[in-house]
Amino acid sequence: MTTEREKMTAGEPYNQFDPELINRRVYMRQQLEEINHITDNDNRNNRFKALLADVGDDFFVESSFKFDYGFNIHIGNHFYGNYDMTFLDTCPITIGEHCYFGPNIGLYTPVHPLDPVQRNADVELGAPITIGDNAWLGGRVTILPGVTLGNNVVVGAGSVVTKSFGDNVVIAGNPARVIKTIK
Amino acid sequence: MTTEREKMTAGEPYNQFDPELINRRVYMRQQLEEINHITDNDNRNNRFKALLADVGDDFFVESSFKFDYGFNIHIGNHFYGNYDMTFLDTCPITIGEHCYFGPNIGLYTPVHPLDPVQRNADVELGAPITIGDNAWLGGRVTILPGVTLGNNVVVGAGSVVTKSFGDNVVIAGNPARVIKTIK
Amino acid sequence: MTTEREKMTAGEPYNQFDPELINRRVYMRQQLEEINHITDNDNRNNRFKALLADVGDDFFVESSFKFDYGFNIHIGNHFYGNYDMTFLDTCPITIGEHCYFGPNIGLYTPVHPLDPVQRNADVELGAPITIGDNAWLGGRVTILPGVTLGNNVVVGAGSVVTKSFGDNVVIAGNPARVIKTIK
Repeated sequence: MTTEREKMTAGEPYNQFDPELINRRVYMRQQLEEINHITDNDNRNNRFKALLADVGDDFFVESSFKFDYGFNIHIGNHFYGNYDMTFLDTCPITIGEHCYFGPNIGLYTPVHPLDPVQRNADVELGAPITIGDNAWLGGRVTILPGVTLGNNVVVGAGSVVTKSFGDNVVIAGNPARVIKTIK
Repeated sequence: MTTEREKMTAGEPYNQFDPELINRRVYMRQQLEEINHITDNDNRNNRFKALLADVGDDFFVESSFKFDYGFNIHIGNHFYGNYDMTFLDTCPITIGEHCYFGPNIGLYTPVHPLDPVQRNADVELGAPITIGDNAWLGGRVTILPGVTLGNNVVVGAGSVVTKSFGDNVVIAGNPARVIKTIK
Repeated sequence: MTTEREKMTAGEPYNQFDPELINRRVYMRQQLEEINHITDNDNRNNRFKALLADVGDDFFVESSFKFDYGFNIHIGNHFYGNYDMTFLDTCPITIGEHCYFGPNIGLYTPVHPLDPVQRNADVELGAPITIGDNAWLGGRVTILPGVTLGNNVVVGAGSVVTKSFGDNVVIAGNPARVIKTIK
């Protein structure tokens, strides 16, 4: 009774050629191609909101914003995202309240097997990304599958976040490490 | 008598919801949406030049070029910028003569407070970026607020430049460090 | 008898203002501007294929895909490329069978002289990039001129690959280093 969408969202191996998933990807790309050319802020942001699982009040994203499905993206109140963010949401991407994302952010939940034989057999899976309240991600931050960030986390521009971190830290680098604690 | 635009440009805290700044951002995004689809090189580059504070002769930028305001971008003669550059110019971005920028370059001048309470109160500030003559920035270089680079600086592809460097060096890495001196 | 295109492809200094090369760049940018707005997958991918030197069966690239010339891009069977890849193909970019590329990948073959006097004289050259079979490049991977990767190589998201690696390794970081061997 479990659908491929449910398996994918749960982080289990799934069939990416499932018709429901293909249809959704095609529909999303058509929608994004339209929406990312809308310069009226209210119109563009309302159209984005309609494609995402749930989004709080005071949501503002610059174009061009890209994602895979939308149905696995959850964003709290008071969100700002700058130019050219890419959220690959095969698994849930959950973002808290009062988060501020710089340009060129990449949140990537998909995972492929390291074994090429399995990978070529189109086995796909993933792991969720969770970001707490009051995050500030500088420009060009990359976050890998399975990462959780606590509340009040600042990520330096250009960082690659490969593991989880708790509350009240500034992290930076590739791989990102704690460079400062926030009181 | 000081406007929010003047405070912002000076790197002081400013109100991002100031009507003059909002209007400029909206206008820029409309212009960029138009200009970045122009494939005629002269037409596209002349349209970009008209939006920037000052630009020298022999200016060539590929699409898609994005920035915040334009009025804080100063570029010397003989500039080439490859695909998909993003310049966040809340503070001045000043680029010398004969500079060559690869694709996917990010120059980010905005700064937010590390304290989440202040950040959520929409306090915004910034710091200028200054790049000397004869710079070559490889692809996907990120430059942080407040950085100054001297003359004849080469920045390796994928580097994140977190502090200033003087003349005649090759820098690379995250954070970028001197890897070679140029004679 | 050697054309500027032949010199460029061979990695020798060439004249970027050669009319054949200028015409090709202008034509490519017009084509890319059109093709990257096509949401029908078969139509978009067939149009891309027609611009590349040779591409195998089962080719799928999401928009927006950008490159310089196309005539130096060689891709084996069963290729998938996610959003916003940039291939600068002044020199050959050769990709094996069954390769899977994440979003925001940058493959850059152009090289400029470190000496600013030579660079300002518009001397341009480059070095090829070769990627073996069964590669998986995570999101936001940057590959520098002259790099060869063997078969079954996995590159961690956000990595900057500055040198060549052999078969059966996972590499990651800036600069990328071997972090695991694949059996």
